[in-house]
Amino acid sequence: MTSDFAATRAAFDLPEGIIYLDGNSLGPLPRAAAERVRACVQDEWGQMLITGWNRAGWMDLPARLGDRIGRLIGAAPGTVVLGDTLSIKVYQALASALELNPGRKVILSDTGNFPSDLYMADGLVRTLGQGYELRTVAPEAVEAAITPDLAVLMLTEVDYRTGRRHDMARLIARAHAAGVLVVWDLAHSAGAIPVDLAGADADFAVGCTYKYLNSGPGGPAFIYVAPRLADRVRPALSGWLGHEAPFAFDLGYRPGRGIERMRVGTPPVLQMAALSASLDIWDRVEMADVRARSIDLTEAFIRGVESACPALTLASPRDPAQRGSQVSFRHPEGYAIMQALIARGVIGDFRAPDILRFGFTPLYTTMDEVAGAVAVLSEVMEKTLWDQPQFKTRARVT
Amino acid sequence: MTSDFAATRAAFDLPEGIIYLDGNSLGPLPRAAAERVRACVQDEWGQMLITGWNRAGWMDLPARLGDRIGRLIGAAPGTVVLGDTLSIKVYQALASALELNPGRKVILSDTGNFPSDLYMADGLVRTLGQGYELRTVAPEAVEAAITPDLAVLMLTEVDYRTGRRHDMARLIARAHAAGVLVVWDLAHSAGAIPVDLAGADADFAVGCTYKYLNSGPGGPAFIYVAPRLADRVRPALSGWLGHEAPFAFDLGYRPGRGIERMRVGTPPVLQMAALSASLDIWDRVEMADVRARSIDLTEAFIRGVESACPALTLASPRDPAQRGSQVSFRHPEGYAIMQALIARGVIGDFRAPDILRFGFTPLYTTMDEVAGAVAVLSEVMEKTLWDQPQFKTRARVT
Repeated sequence: MTSDFAATRAAFDLPEGIIYLDGNSLGPLPRAAAERVRACVQDEWGQMLITGWNRAGWMDLPARLGDRIGRLIGAAPGTVVLGDTLSIKVYQALASALELNPGRKVILSDTGNFPSDLYMADGLVRTLGQGYELRTVAPEAVEAAITPDLAVLMLTEVDYRTGRRHDMARLIARAHAAGVLVVWDLAHSAGAIPVDLAGADADFAVGCTYKYLNSGPGGPAFIYVAPRLADRVRPALSGWLGHEAPFAFDLGYRPGRGIERMRVGTPPVLQMAALSASLDIWDRVEMADVRARSIDLTEAFIRGVESACPALTLASPRDPAQRGSQVSFRHPEGYAIMQALIARGVIGDFRAPDILRFGFTPLYTTMDEVAGAVAVLSEVMEKTLWDQPQFKTRARVT
Repeated sequence: MTSDFAATRAAFDLPEGIIYLDGNSLGPLPRAAAERVRACVQDEWGQMLITGWNRAGWMDLPARLGDRIGRLIGAAPGTVVLGDTLSIKVYQALASALELNPGRKVILSDTGNFPSDLYMADGLVRTLGQGYELRTVAPEAVEAAITPDLAVLMLTEVDYRTGRRHDMARLIARAHAAGVLVVWDLAHSAGAIPVDLAGADADFAVGCTYKYLNSGPGGPAFIYVAPRLADRVRPALSGWLGHEAPFAFDLGYRPGRGIERMRVGTPPVLQMAALSASLDIWDRVEMADVRARSIDLTEAFIRGVESACPALTLASPRDPAQRGSQVSFRHPEGYAIMQALIARGVIGDFRAPDILRFGFTPLYTTMDEVAGAVAVLSEVMEKTLWDQPQFKTRARVT
């Protein structure tokens, strides 16, 4: 299949006059999502009421949509399920991984991880007590820090600030050789780069759907558990929809089959309706094509900015193989520069202390937009428009 | 204020020809929710994109909507926040309560609790190890089982099967006298009966919004923490949106102020839009009026069924003060009877092993519908329509 990116672009409802380079934070609205959500609200909830759980198939959506995400991350059908938020899924995966590796008490992560992952790990080890520990090292020191005392290695594959990418297959092999289980956060990977969880022999992975997967604000997270582990997991978050027979209402918990046991509570049906419309677009492309186009877009952006804006320092790896689908630059006045860009219709975002972050999302970002963004950034920098008072009034860290 | 229930009824979009007595499982669609969700999808997500978090106020919705729910459950502004599912909120409240009561390791609950609450408690004590324990007794034995070795008493105020109601104020007083903290599940209380969390000196409470609060399938849960405790809680589920400064992206977790620390991950914005439309209806009524009407409806239903259907046995308390806003009857063929009712447009639900459950929701249930439901039930029972093959084909427990 050759992916048709003009067609996928046309499938999104993007505001006029905006160059949107923040789909790595919140993906835009798929045109079909509006009707899909309307139908879910009015035809399903409104007309079917409680019977929608069966008649409209709401109850099965976490597994069915999970399978469709699975295609994008190298996960076989029946190994991915939707639910909760990414932070909850991190906790769930970590708790499960720790229990599968008894006698070891250390979680290793890196300082480039998304803070919420570290917070959730901290909350878990504090709750467990008994010598459990979260250890963090610099991203480049991870491989050397994999030692046989570790229980779990927890990493975000693509750094949310810089786009720097870990070598998943290599780190998994290194970890497994030391008897360590690995939990991957795919927040900036799913839909951004090809991921091959099964091929890399991954243990656990989690991710969110509202970035590259365009499910809308607050869309649910997903979790993957390797089939060789799924039936051995005893969920810490043992909710009724992960029970073998939720509607038997037994007093005792019996985990459901495989990945089903990672379900917890009632899933967000309206949010899943929006996601289903986005996945229809994803069904029409191949990740290899998406990746090739992502590299074209990011390479062009880097070339343009480095040529036009010498005051900005590339914060992302120069080698495209080493980064995800975003490009970041550093500048001490990064916050004010981003405010000036946004005021001119180029939407990226700022990450403390000095990162200007731009996401490139091949389903809808065009090469013309890359050129347009470079031109606006260049104007802002040349004329130090960012130094004007209106872009300085808010606190630097928001 | 005198609540106008003809007006609130007109504010819901109910299908023609249906008598809906299952709003205690999934509330119906508020008419305004369709437009509210459309605007959230197209005008906010579609047009504002990432800036919707501030411009459309998405980030503050969990607290703002929490305050509006607070009015219905006797909770002061700033003490309730939305997020996650009820099961997750149970875990969060239990973990916090246990930590606030160090040196004690027993959670007491009852066998009438919703199974997921027991499952989540079981997962938590298993994760904690070290002698932590979940103890369950019969609902009527709870008061006598409150002993000074307990850390936490965890109860659902209104029994999901029978509607039997615990005496919240009395049990809290009894528990506090024994040094025990209490976690209340308000799934069948919020919007069903007047609740006075502050007046009863409650410690923690959790609930869901898709039953009596009509937020739609998979709407978020809520959690209440008493102000005297909120700043002492160290969240086990320490997600970034509960951090004191989420967008500082610090590597270390510092809990946010008061109830804010009970937030975890990114909240479901589309589901919250639907909830906001329902809360507009709730803003127009007083809980005392809702309760008075609920008692009228349930009393009329019990009288009608007992008179017309002698084969059915009342499973709910006869004294309305002892029950919530539902009425349940028992019959060995309960599953088939409910299928026959649903086939005739009277929607209640079945709970194993033999419970026919009917929810009465004064915002939209009318006295005519009560009479209509009694007539249909009577017809089904008199002619043993439920004994026909088409109502026997599915498994009894679904």
